[in-house]
Amino acid sequence: RSLSTAARSSLKIGLIPADGIGKEVIPAARQAIEALGSDIPKPEFVDLPAGWETFTKTGVALPQETVDILRSDCDCALFGSVSSPSRKVVGYSSPIVALRKELDLYANIRPVTSVSLQVGEKPAVDLIVVRENTECLYVKQETSTVGEHGKEARATRLITERASRRIGRMAFELAQARPRKHLTIIHKSNVLSITDGLFRETVRGVPSLPELDGKFNEVTIAEQLVDSAVYRLFREPEVFDVMVAPNLYGDIISDAAAALVGSLGLIPSVNAGDNFVMGEPVHGSAPDIEGKGIANPLASIRSAALMLRHLGYTNGANRLDEAVDAVIREGTTLTPDLKGTSSTQEVLEAVLKRL
Amino acid sequence: RSLSTAARSSLKIGLIPADGIGKEVIPAARQAIEALGSDIPKPEFVDLPAGWETFTKTGVALPQETVDILRSDCDCALFGSVSSPSRKVVGYSSPIVALRKELDLYANIRPVTSVSLQVGEKPAVDLIVVRENTECLYVKQETSTVGEHGKEARATRLITERASRRIGRMAFELAQARPRKHLTIIHKSNVLSITDGLFRETVRGVPSLPELDGKFNEVTIAEQLVDSAVYRLFREPEVFDVMVAPNLYGDIISDAAAALVGSLGLIPSVNAGDNFVMGEPVHGSAPDIEGKGIANPLASIRSAALMLRHLGYTNGANRLDEAVDAVIREGTTLTPDLKGTSSTQEVLEAVLKRL
Ligand SMILES: CC(C)[C@H](C(=O)O)[C@@H](O)C(=O)O
Ligand SMILES: CC(C)[C@H](C(=O)O)[C@@H](O)C(=O)O
Repeated sequence: RSLSTAARSSLKIGLIPADGIGKEVIPAARQAIEALGSDIPKPEFVDLPAGWETFTKTGVALPQETVDILRSDCDCALFGSVSSPSRKVVGYSSPIVALRKELDLYANIRPVTSVSLQVGEKPAVDLIVVRENTECLYVKQETSTVGEHGKEARATRLITERASRRIGRMAFELAQARPRKHLTIIHKSNVLSITDGLFRETVRGVPSLPELDGKFNEVTIAEQLVDSAVYRLFREPEVFDVMVAPNLYGDIISDAAAALVGSLGLIPSVNAGDNFVMGEPVHGSAPDIEGKGIANPLASIRSAALMLRHLGYTNGANRLDEAVDAVIREGTTLTPDLKGTSSTQEVLEAVLKRL
Repeated sequence: RSLSTAARSSLKIGLIPADGIGKEVIPAARQAIEALGSDIPKPEFVDLPAGWETFTKTGVALPQETVDILRSDCDCALFGSVSSPSRKVVGYSSPIVALRKELDLYANIRPVTSVSLQVGEKPAVDLIVVRENTECLYVKQETSTVGEHGKEARATRLITERASRRIGRMAFELAQARPRKHLTIIHKSNVLSITDGLFRETVRGVPSLPELDGKFNEVTIAEQLVDSAVYRLFREPEVFDVMVAPNLYGDIISDAAAALVGSLGLIPSVNAGDNFVMGEPVHGSAPDIEGKGIANPLASIRSAALMLRHLGYTNGANRLDEAVDAVIREGTTLTPDLKGTSSTQEVLEAVLKRL
C-alpha cells in the first residue's frame, strides 16, 4: 500500500477510537466519510483496539496486531483519544505516542482556522502548527536514581538533524502552498543552544538543500522563542502563518492556538509520514463528558478531511470542510463546548445534511 | 547578610540592568524605591554588569565580581533583561539562568493580576505562577554527536525530589496565604512519567511532611497537563489561583498568563531563595524599542515591590503597587505596549506623583 491515490479501488481506513469521547467522535467521522460517495474510493473500515481501556483488559495499550494491520492492510487511519491513568502504572505507556513512532508518522500537522462569519471573508486566525512527532522529550528515555538528597530523575531530549530536516521540509511545503508563504521556527535556543540550535539551523537550511532546487526561495522565515510565541499567539495571532516546532513546544503551541478559535473540539490534526497518514482530533478523551453523547464531532470530521486531503482526495476533503464550516457558521446546531445544546448525533446529522 | 528585616539600617540593592530596555526600566525602578522614604531602610544601590553587551566587551556574560558582590554585600537585587545572540556564540550563556543557579534562587514567583476598573473590585485574572528555577532543561547539559544520519543532539532534563519539594513548599505557602487557597500542579506526566511523575508526587506530598504539622491542610490541590493548562489559561483563567510548575513549563505558562492582562510590560517576578531575593520583570530586552525611551517601567517597579514584600517591607511594597495600579486605572499615562503614547519617564513620574 502506498500514499499514491493512483490505483485504489477501495480505501481501507483503520479506526482506533481508543478511550473516552474517542468512542463517540470516531464513529461520527466514519459516517461523514461514508456519505462522500464517489468523491473517494469505496471506504472499508477496520476497527482496531488501543488505549487505556485496552490496557486494563489485556495488559497492553497498543496491541501488536493493531500496528501490524495498520501497516500491512490500511491506507490510512483515524485515531480518537486516550485516557491516562492518574498515577504511574507499570507497563502502561501512551499508545498514541507509540503509534506515531511505530508508523514513523513524523509530522503532526494542526491547522487552526477560525470560521469567518461570511463565506469568503478572511478568517481572524488562520495558521498551521507543524509539530515534530517522533523525538524531543517524547523519546521517553527516563531514568531515576537516589542521590544524596533523595530521588533524582532524568529524561533525555533528543533532537536530530534528520528529523529536523524532514519536519522542516514538510513545513516549507505547507508554507509554500499558502498565500502568505511565511514560516516561523519555534525554539528556545537561548537556553537549549545545542538541541534547539540544531533544530533551528537545520530547518533554516532546508531551502538551500540542492535537491530542492530553490523551490522554497519565496518562503519568508521568522523565529520566535516558545515562551514569547505563546504570548504572541494570544496577542497577535495574525503574525503567524505556518509554525514549525519540536515535539513538546508543538504540543503546547497547538493547544494555545486552539484556544483562539473557541474550542479544542474544532481542531483537527494528521500524523503524517512518508508512507502513512492518520487523522486525530487534537482534543483529549474528556472523561468529564464521556458517554453523555455531547462530544463535539467536528474535530474528528475535520481530521478525516485532512487525512483525505493528504491522500490526494481534495474534493472529498473540501466537501467535509465546507459542511463543517456551514454548520459552525449557521450556529444553531452546536455542542456545549461551543455554547450550544445539541448532541454529537445532531451535529453529525447537520453535517451529513450538507454533504 | 540575611533575609530577616531585623537589624537593617540600610538596604543594599544590587542593580543589574543588563541589556536593551533593562537599562531603561531598572533606573526607573530605582527612583521609585528611592521615593519610598521611611517605609524602608535607606536604600543603597550598587551597579553591577552582566549580559550580552558585557560579554561582547569582556568575553564574560556574568562576571564573577557581580556574583561575589551580590552574595557578600547585597540584601537583594533587581535584574533587567538580557539579549541573546541570534546564533550560538561559543562561550556565551545566559547570565540570568546562571545567576538563578549561583545564588540558588530556586523559585521564580510571577503574580499575574489584572487591575480592576474600580478599587476593591475583584480582578478578572488573579493568579501566581510559581516556577522552579534551577533544574529541568535549564541544567543545560547538552551534548552533540554525529550519527549515521547526521548530527544528533541531546539535552538532559533533571527533576529532583529536593528541588520539587522546596518549590512545592513555596507554592503551598503562597496558596495558603490567599483567599482561595488553591494550588494547581502543572506537569506532563502522561509522557514524562518518571521526571514529571516525581515532580507531581513530591509536590503532592508536601502537605504531609511531618515538620509542617498540617499547616497546608486547607489548601486544595488540582493538576493540569501543561498543554491543556495553556488552553485553559486562555479560556477560563479564573480556575487558577496558584500554579506550580517545573522550570520550562513555568516559563511558558507565565508568558501565557501575561498575555491575559494586556502586556508583558506589566508582569513582575522575583527569583527567590532561602537567602536572597532578586526582582526581575518578566519581559525581555525588547531590541525593537531599545533606546527609544518608551519601555514600560511598571513591570520593574512591581518587581521592586515584590522584592520588598519578600524582605518584609509590606508598607513600601503596597505603596508601590497602589501607585502602579492607580496609574493603570487612570489610563492616561501609559506606554505604547498598553496603547498609550507616554514615555518611560512620564509613566515613572506619574507613579512617583502617587507615592
Ligand atoms: C495524549 C498526549 C500524549 C498527546 C501528546 O502530548 O502528544 C496529546 O496531548 C496530543 O497533543 O496529541
Ligand atoms: C531569557 C530566558 C533565558 C529566560 C528564561 O527562559 O528563563 C526568560 O524567558 C524568562 O522567563 O526569564
